Amino acid sequence: MSDTPLNTGTAEPFVSAELYAQIQQFYARQMGLIDDGRPADWAETFTEDATFQEASRLNAPLKGRTAIRESSTARQARLDADKIDFRHWLAMLDVRPQPDGSLRTRAYALAMRTPRGGALDIFASVVCHDHLVPAGGGWQVRERDLYHDGSGRD
Amino acid sequence: MSDTPLNTGTAEPFVSAELYAQIQQFYARQMGLIDDGRPADWAETFTEDATFQEASRLNAPLKGRTAIRESSTARQARLDADKIDFRHWLAMLDVRPQPDGSLRTRAYALAMRTPRGGALDIFASVVCHDHLVPAGGGWQVRERDLYHDGSGRD
Amino acid sequence: MSDTPLNTGTAEPFVSAELYAQIQQFYARQMGLIDDGRPADWAETFTEDATFQEASRLNAPLKGRTAIRESSTARQARLDADKIDFRHWLAMLDVRPQPDGSLRTRAYALAMRTPRGGALDIFASVVCHDHLVPAGGGWQVRERDLYHDGSGRD
Repeated sequence: MSDTPLNTGTAEPFVSAELYAQIQQFYARQMGLIDDGRPADWAETFTEDATFQEASRLNAPLKGRTAIRESSTARQARLDADKIDFRHWLAMLDVRPQPDGSLRTRAYALAMRTPRGGALDIFASVVCHDHLVPAGGGWQVRERDLYHDGSGRD
Repeated sequence: MSDTPLNTGTAEPFVSAELYAQIQQFYARQMGLIDDGRPADWAETFTEDATFQEASRLNAPLKGRTAIRESSTARQARLDADKIDFRHWLAMLDVRPQPDGSLRTRAYALAMRTPRGGALDIFASVVCHDHLVPAGGGWQVRERDLYHDGSGRD
Repeated sequence: MSDTPLNTGTAEPFVSAELYAQIQQFYARQMGLIDDGRPADWAETFTEDATFQEASRLNAPLKGRTAIRESSTARQARLDADKIDFRHWLAMLDVRPQPDGSLRTRAYALAMRTPRGGALDIFASVVCHDHLVPAGGGWQVRERDLYHDGSGRD
């Protein structure tokens, strides 16, 4: 995690509203894609060479968009079979521009599911550190690192 | 749902920060009104001819501001009688401007309640599709369609 | 609560995107500091003479940054001893500029904890009223008043 942003508190300049609103919209749409059951479109929001370190840390990181697509497609098939509505909430966003024009972001995420006819289960709080790079007027994730609360990493 | 926005992913342009922040503030204030127990003021955030499709889908849609006011007033009386603090969280906002100057929005919502002296219960995850129209320098809801997770609509 | 902002609904002007995004970033960073286990840095986000009215209302308000630092340092020591990851989510932000250049804000907050190897527990919904004052290009909290849902105040 040596290259993820330290939380330097409120001393560093805030980013512009334009950039902040862009990244908020990026995440609303990105999470919307996976929650709508569109893993192939979701995979396109990552760079070809993206790295995705999953929260559970039981598995090795996913390396590359193809691996991300395959993993998320398999995950969606399981959700469909189990008739589960899944939502990713992401908020408390902090954005730190890097000298090369990329961005380091930090956000909180909540993972929740509702089975058909069943009760809402908000089951995980996660801290998401992303490295975003400009792509076609928008942004793509080059690196995602998820810390699962309660996992005691570090 | 044919006229609600498809999630076209991250390819469509983001809206400006000014518009995005306006809509975020609109929802913070709108939900604040209902949660503060002010159903009459809440009703004013809808157009006279607004349609409100409730999450449960057990009832027909509410048609018109008067029906929305009566429904929310009755709901508030029940909450008051039961001494329940109710909160609507709305986030993960996506905004899609329409050619006529109106907006189609999509957002996630969490519904939660805390009885006097009791425990917090976050009991529903909802996807909210709104049609917003300009009104007096701000916005009003002309159409609200709520999908209740786990209800299996599609 | 006489000087906390009334929710005047959607009639009052929205604040600019620049100001709104600044305050969103302020809260993401401020809550990030306490959640990262940095009570001394957290305390610096309050003015020297800040007042902090805790949600539980079992105790008198904290008066002054030193008291806030001591209280949050003791709290962090308990969390560390119990190996608990704690998160403060803050959202549904409303910002009301005051004639003297300060801000009155209202936001919803969720308090949640995850013990090492255990389950997420989102245990409190809180309404946060802050008085923010300009400080070194950013903002500091001069007064924080928390209403804990279910506590039946007023």
